[in-house]
Amino acid sequence: MAHATDGGKRLRGFLVLETARLHGIGAEVAIWPATAIEALHAYSLVHDDLPCMDDDDLRRGLPTVHRKWDEATAVLAGDALQSLAFELVTAPEVGSGDLRAKLARTLAVAAGAQGMVLGQTLDIAAETAPEPLSLDAITALQQGKTGALIAWATLAGPRMAGADTAPLAAYAKALGLAFQIADDILDVTGDTATVGKATGKDASAGKATFVSHLGLDGAKRRANDLMQSACDALSVYGGDADTLRDAARFVVARKN
Amino acid sequence: MAHATDGGKRLRGFLVLETARLHGIGAEVAIWPATAIEALHAYSLVHDDLPCMDDDDLRRGLPTVHRKWDEATAVLAGDALQSLAFELVTAPEVGSGDLRAKLARTLAVAAGAQGMVLGQTLDIAAETAPEPLSLDAITALQQGKTGALIAWATLAGPRMAGADTAPLAAYAKALGLAFQIADDILDVTGDTATVGKATGKDASAGKATFVSHLGLDGAKRRANDLMQSACDALSVYGGDADTLRDAARFVVARKN
Repeated sequence: MAHATDGGKRLRGFLVLETARLHGIGAEVAIWPATAIEALHAYSLVHDDLPCMDDDDLRRGLPTVHRKWDEATAVLAGDALQSLAFELVTAPEVGSGDLRAKLARTLAVAAGAQGMVLGQTLDIAAETAPEPLSLDAITALQQGKTGALIAWATLAGPRMAGADTAPLAAYAKALGLAFQIADDILDVTGDTATVGKATGKDASAGKATFVSHLGLDGAKRRANDLMQSACDALSVYGGDADTLRDAARFVVARKN
Repeated sequence: MAHATDGGKRLRGFLVLETARLHGIGAEVAIWPATAIEALHAYSLVHDDLPCMDDDDLRRGLPTVHRKWDEATAVLAGDALQSLAFELVTAPEVGSGDLRAKLARTLAVAAGAQGMVLGQTLDIAAETAPEPLSLDAITALQQGKTGALIAWATLAGPRMAGADTAPLAAYAKALGLAFQIADDILDVTGDTATVGKATGKDASAGKATFVSHLGLDGAKRRANDLMQSACDALSVYGGDADTLRDAARFVVARKN
């Protein structure tokens, strides 16, 4: 479990901390949902890397859990990381019972068969589909696979403060999609040492991606447009949201 | 997910409903934590049956999820069942935010690396240990592997009512151990058609069990003693707990 949560960008944890700060909630409180979403995300990577799923040897520049240990350890470590996420998000330090129950319930929905696992299932089904996925289908898949947890992390701040979630929901939607397009671009343009995981997998698998549909330049333009939309969605927060704007720029410019 | 939750004894869900009823809480409320613990238990069976774990073809008289579909489906269905458990246990119908957060948090601890997954990990480690496990080590392993969820289910009633959990904690401890001993006995004496899963696995794997330590008659006596202890722990509830006493008798007399 420690190995699986080591390294990484910790984008989702950052989004919790930063959207909490934006609503006047300190890191000593927000660290609980921030670590919860990182544990949940780490579980999804451990299971996603399994031989029966994406069969990856490298993650965050380190051997994957089933490579360093074995498959049973990877299944169990992932399972326990999911449990840990719900333990962390319901810690008494987070606040009222109502808030903790709401954070746990929304996290469960984002992680489950209507969110992340749905996206994963669609992704695996696409491998054996007779036709490559349309751009709309890829977008829908992404909204589950990576979008649901990014949205939960981004909404944690306003949820904890009981504030309007609409501006950050718009930011999260654009950010999540930009993130996935950047991932598809990195699979084409990145090298394994820098990205920290295998690259070139989509093309060699003949998988439909944002790059295969839009071309490399078209995908870069789309990612930049979405980055701009994400920044625009933050106008209500003024200069206070500049770090979140930087995060949107980072998401499309990142090398790993 | 539907296949994995089909059939079975539903002992854990029953324990939630019955201990809730004992504290004046109706089934329309208790059904939420009852279905939550059944979803969580079902997830653990789906992952436990995977080729990299116990590699079982049959569960509850039906093909296991990875046999009926494939391993990726089994990993994902299990993952989503765990998420679903936390969605169900935090349903607004359960009661106050404090109660829902408490049920979610205790469930996360019971399921995770200090509870069920710890027991599973010890069980897998035992397969390659140089010496067979001692009776104490098997007992500790069982308290995690099956004891933690049985205890959570049994304590759900008093927790929901804000009542003393001590009598039912004693009942659950004896019941959980009796349950595991009965499982070990069934592995020796049962046939696959009746039990609904493969039998004779422990002996052929040379695995230390309650039966290998105590002998068949000794294990039966121990299970009966524990059943009696479980019934005695209910004295404070009088005749109102007769159904829970019947459940303890069922656990040691069951054929599947």
